[in-house]
Amino acid sequence: MSSILKTNRAWTLASRPAGEPDENTFSLTQNSIPVPGESQMLLRTVYLSLDPYMRGRLASGKSYAAPVAIGDVMVGGTVSQVEQSNIDGFAPGDWVLSQGGWQTYSISGSEGVIKLDANFAHPSYALGILGMPGFTAFMGLSEIGKPRPGETLVVAAATGPVGATVGQLGKLWGCKVVGVAGGEEKCRYAKETLGFDDCLDHRAADFEQQLAAACPEGIDVYFENVGGRVFDAVFPLLNTGARVPLCGLIASYNATSLPEGPDRTPYIMMEMIKRRIQIRGFIVFDDFGPRFGEFFEKMSVLVAEGKIHYKEQVVEGLENAPAALNQLLRGENFGKMVIKVTSPV
Amino acid sequence: MSSILKTNRAWTLASRPAGEPDENTFSLTQNSIPVPGESQMLLRTVYLSLDPYMRGRLASGKSYAAPVAIGDVMVGGTVSQVEQSNIDGFAPGDWVLSQGGWQTYSISGSEGVIKLDANFAHPSYALGILGMPGFTAFMGLSEIGKPRPGETLVVAAATGPVGATVGQLGKLWGCKVVGVAGGEEKCRYAKETLGFDDCLDHRAADFEQQLAAACPEGIDVYFENVGGRVFDAVFPLLNTGARVPLCGLIASYNATSLPEGPDRTPYIMMEMIKRRIQIRGFIVFDDFGPRFGEFFEKMSVLVAEGKIHYKEQVVEGLENAPAALNQLLRGENFGKMVIKVTSPV
Repeated sequence: MSSILKTNRAWTLASRPAGEPDENTFSLTQNSIPVPGESQMLLRTVYLSLDPYMRGRLASGKSYAAPVAIGDVMVGGTVSQVEQSNIDGFAPGDWVLSQGGWQTYSISGSEGVIKLDANFAHPSYALGILGMPGFTAFMGLSEIGKPRPGETLVVAAATGPVGATVGQLGKLWGCKVVGVAGGEEKCRYAKETLGFDDCLDHRAADFEQQLAAACPEGIDVYFENVGGRVFDAVFPLLNTGARVPLCGLIASYNATSLPEGPDRTPYIMMEMIKRRIQIRGFIVFDDFGPRFGEFFEKMSVLVAEGKIHYKEQVVEGLENAPAALNQLLRGENFGKMVIKVTSPV
Repeated sequence: MSSILKTNRAWTLASRPAGEPDENTFSLTQNSIPVPGESQMLLRTVYLSLDPYMRGRLASGKSYAAPVAIGDVMVGGTVSQVEQSNIDGFAPGDWVLSQGGWQTYSISGSEGVIKLDANFAHPSYALGILGMPGFTAFMGLSEIGKPRPGETLVVAAATGPVGATVGQLGKLWGCKVVGVAGGEEKCRYAKETLGFDDCLDHRAADFEQQLAAACPEGIDVYFENVGGRVFDAVFPLLNTGARVPLCGLIASYNATSLPEGPDRTPYIMMEMIKRRIQIRGFIVFDDFGPRFGEFFEKMSVLVAEGKIHYKEQVVEGLENAPAALNQLLRGENFGKMVIKVTSPV
């Protein structure tokens, strides 16, 4: 680790990918460790979060937020430790949740930085179940999905940090929960560990029939984070009055063109009238930012009490970030993808 | 009129149309006037409402409601007078709002029948501004559109009973209102009589550019009752956080196939995330039925005070109903389409 600690290593965006990111997309650079100025601090990244939204930042247009410029360090949420601080209230050794990006060291002001309690059992959880993905699950389900006891809730990417949380909250709130995941192992985990009523493999040839059979009373809430084949199978099963919180479409992120026709837009919209369906896109911090504290408190209790399970896939070493992102976009991860960049002190 | 009054004339559904209804779609039948049984009454239709949703009832699948069966009398809202009554509280001469359908006489129970005040100035208004279309405008805009003062509201079919009401309510509630209508005369009416800030002709070759120019700050609420080219022009202009109450797609009702590809579904959904857009299909009595009384009271005052203008196109004679429905579906009507079936007593 000593060589890393003498320099700052960073992944910058080298070129915008068409389709899946490849070896030309990112460039690993090495620089001297930056020096914090007035009202700044130097942070050392311990954990870097990898999330599906990152694919959007590689494109030239605005996705959830503005794109990363060519040559800039790739963005990302990080859990870091303070190395040097010129900010009151932040001292060396403190743990913080910040937007450090894909690099070992970052310079930060205090804005948008959340200090983590020194007793915080799992600092990396601030990137998942107690951070953006958990918050997305909690607010999207409670405020848009509005599930009622006895209703049927379907969620895809069922073992990812958003889907797993959505499904477990759905169970706590009295729903029948059917997950969708890639492969038998994930499905078994969703049923046996997460307590879903059922979980289906979207790779099965008869997935559509399996889903219909698993939801004999139709679907009242579909938490949409995937799109593609799962959406197509779910849509005809949506009940009158169904709600669709829409926060991601990972199945389409690497697509370079739209699917072939016909254009189903008028069909989808007409069905939305007939069945009085509601679809609402959201970006959790933009829509519900002020409620983060409330979420954090409630979810911390649920996790501490063992009522919500949480699984991470920790990959060692910043150098593995691009490959790990591709794994994530292909659905080959199992649990929240986190890069361990340096060791905690 | 005397010959009509000796028999019941009714339009029944003869065959399901592909595309626009034609001379094979409906059949005009003549029968003896039915006799009301116990707890029933005989109603004579004075006004029959023609509405876009009727196209859906001609198809074989469920649209807003179940289809009309071949051979059955075509459905429709009516303002009628009681001829004979075996129901307490309903006496000959009373005015009622009912679902009498496309016929001169109907047998009715009391369920779902609303008795109109004897002093009701314009009984036919119960089919429009004070009935389903006005209720649709009021609830869709207030509960789903949720317009805030200073926001930009766009509504198509701007001189129809729903669109005209939506736009006028938008002005009362402090919005900038841009209408879309077919032809110069309607646009002038929307601006000069209804008080819209602007109204554009969707037939103009540069309609898309005109709309963008008319909405320099984007669109916050789009009240969707048309679809097609208007939706396509509006969608790119929707602002972050925009709301789209969705109650009709008249541009597609006569379509026999979906538009050519590519399939824009993933594009539409991705944009709904990026811009956090909400689209909600609704059917006013199913979603908001219990609030009809509240609506009726408020809207009656607005109409009586001249704050909401209302325009009808009254066509004389039940025999003209099929042609008038086609006019409506083509957007050739100007104001709420009503058939005057018999004269009031």
